[in-house]
Amino acid sequence: MNQVTAVLNEVRASSPLVHCITNTVVPEITANVLLAVGAAPAMIDLPEEAEIFAGVASALLINLGNGSSEQHRAMPLAAASAVAHDRPWVLDPVAVGALPVRTRLARELLEQTPAAVRGNPSEILGLAGESAGGRGVDSTDAVEDALATARGLASRVGTVVAVSGPVDLIVSADRTTRVTGGSDLMPLVIGTGCSLGATVAACLGAALPAGLGRHDAVVAAHALFAAAGTVAARQASAPGSFRTAWIDALYRLTPDEVVGLVTIRDA
Amino acid sequence: MNQVTAVLNEVRASSPLVHCITNTVVPEITANVLLAVGAAPAMIDLPEEAEIFAGVASALLINLGNGSSEQHRAMPLAAASAVAHDRPWVLDPVAVGALPVRTRLARELLEQTPAAVRGNPSEILGLAGESAGGRGVDSTDAVEDALATARGLASRVGTVVAVSGPVDLIVSADRTTRVTGGSDLMPLVIGTGCSLGATVAACLGAALPAGLGRHDAVVAAHALFAAAGTVAARQASAPGSFRTAWIDALYRLTPDEVVGLVTIRDA
Amino acid sequence: MNQVTAVLNEVRASSPLVHCITNTVVPEITANVLLAVGAAPAMIDLPEEAEIFAGVASALLINLGNGSSEQHRAMPLAAASAVAHDRPWVLDPVAVGALPVRTRLARELLEQTPAAVRGNPSEILGLAGESAGGRGVDSTDAVEDALATARGLASRVGTVVAVSGPVDLIVSADRTTRVTGGSDLMPLVIGTGCSLGATVAACLGAALPAGLGRHDAVVAAHALFAAAGTVAARQASAPGSFRTAWIDALYRLTPDEVVGLVTIRDA
Repeated sequence: MNQVTAVLNEVRASSPLVHCITNTVVPEITANVLLAVGAAPAMIDLPEEAEIFAGVASALLINLGNGSSEQHRAMPLAAASAVAHDRPWVLDPVAVGALPVRTRLARELLEQTPAAVRGNPSEILGLAGESAGGRGVDSTDAVEDALATARGLASRVGTVVAVSGPVDLIVSADRTTRVTGGSDLMPLVIGTGCSLGATVAACLGAALPAGLGRHDAVVAAHALFAAAGTVAARQASAPGSFRTAWIDALYRLTPDEVVGLVTIRDA
Repeated sequence: MNQVTAVLNEVRASSPLVHCITNTVVPEITANVLLAVGAAPAMIDLPEEAEIFAGVASALLINLGNGSSEQHRAMPLAAASAVAHDRPWVLDPVAVGALPVRTRLARELLEQTPAAVRGNPSEILGLAGESAGGRGVDSTDAVEDALATARGLASRVGTVVAVSGPVDLIVSADRTTRVTGGSDLMPLVIGTGCSLGATVAACLGAALPAGLGRHDAVVAAHALFAAAGTVAARQASAPGSFRTAWIDALYRLTPDEVVGLVTIRDA
Repeated sequence: MNQVTAVLNEVRASSPLVHCITNTVVPEITANVLLAVGAAPAMIDLPEEAEIFAGVASALLINLGNGSSEQHRAMPLAAASAVAHDRPWVLDPVAVGALPVRTRLARELLEQTPAAVRGNPSEILGLAGESAGGRGVDSTDAVEDALATARGLASRVGTVVAVSGPVDLIVSADRTTRVTGGSDLMPLVIGTGCSLGATVAACLGAALPAGLGRHDAVVAAHALFAAAGTVAARQASAPGSFRTAWIDALYRLTPDEVVGLVTIRDA
């Protein structure tokens, strides 16, 4: 069986509990996406509770988009707790590079060795100190321009780095995968990127205990998102109805259908 | 006229103003649901403002899902203000039992005598100290397993306890009602449970000033939600489109249609 | 070319980056609306980051609906930074007049000379100290009752005051415009008013650098919202599906279609 198919089957079978510390804009869509893909969401931000919960959940997402200082206090505690309890955690460095508080925090969090980092090209460059970080959540850099930086980051930190764009780039120290699919409407629905970070966490939380690979788990999340985007774009041509069709597709697509809808290439 | 019909008519007629202190994931769907059922939502979290507003609104919802410490400071002030001004308030003990900060807070709040408590089985058991509280917002216990605990809680606190599940259980000291209806897709849309707590508050805020019963008000909210779920499931088979159809149904269903779509049994 | 058409074309052409400090209920719909109309949203609330970002973004929205005390600390810093960097900012005085903390804050912020103020009639009266401010976000006053107050406020502060309702009133010191259109379903979708404030900011952020007028920019935002409401009401008759159709219409409508769908009258 294809590794992507195996990961997505495992998500449906094990329903990983994903602890999210995420920004104020996307909690609802993130939770709905996690439910649609077969995972269970739990947003828990209070430092005292987050530290406990990160050790119990299947995986943790830390998204640095617009958060409170209380959430910022919870993040290092939760990341350390996840690591201590051998749970994978994912860093989504929203607008890192462009804004100082979150840039410092992102670099501090990186020392806790996330299982994966997911961002747009400007954010990945910003995390590595090589870009001003785009305009808020928008990237001003192209995906392929972040390739060398992503490789360096993956090697140095020992993580999988995913760079999202029209073609997604998933980079480990010894492997680079490109996922092609999706729709131009996806960036017009807020939270598609942020909920991809959460779905990466879900795939890791399901895959690793089943002996599946970390890199494959990250690829599987991106393949699922792109496939659902491709399907939704056949049904809807504006962002309101696209959003609904896309969540329906995330729920309905079988792992085999996902693999048939996107192009996944190692190089 | 059926008591459920009377309550739902009263919600449409009086448009109760529902003050919600709720978690970071569900404010938007909660507000949209309150508007759809004929109530008026107001989320007010600052301690100083919440204390004032809880004395003015028709009813108050306190939902213990992911909240900030600032919201936690507002909750006891708002509950006390609601009680002092003779306004019903509803406690939704999300993930209580599983997490320490909110468990302590829930038990402290219980002393302010909520008019109703609504949760899933694990949360009701957790509130009573009899369960570890499930996985985040997911219940790991069955509805009927919480029956004796719900009865004890209802008697001891002098409240109505609603236990949500495939069959909802509404329990007062001297009465037990089961509501059957809805759809398996409801738990796949985040906030259907949390907005049910808000709708319980809306029904109480409309029913009590009109001389209708507290138990009937809680039953009416559950009947409306289940009926809308039943209707939405006829129109949609995936959670994105189900969510839209369900909100439309909450808006469109007449009280008589609600009563015709669900089974309500006292026993 | 019509001035409204010119403003809306400029929004699509320049994709203004809109910094929003807004309430806990509406960030997602606000971001989706900004994306649909062609702008780029960025919610940034931390005081240190908000101060920096307000000087970089095309425009700033400050919405006083349910916010944390941390957001309240950020608001004056962001407004001052916007003014210092010659960026337009918009004040949305949600529930001002009805609640004390935000009423004090709104009057303090008014000294930073917003380019526009947008609210319902009760909020505009409340901001001027002439009303108790309605029921939460609901207005208890009629639009035309706020006309004289809006004129006084516009003159005294040197701003454009928009009063939203079935007929929108846009008032500058020397000009009054009425926009007619939309649908009764709009107030049943939470965030349509709050995202109008954000779209006013987007129109100002696009119009002013292009040499277009401030009053016209505010009119254009209201015309676009009303036109999309008119279109959506032809497709949907309940708030769940209306919301989807309305966001689709915001995305699809050309500036010429907008002008054809609403009535805009100066008087």
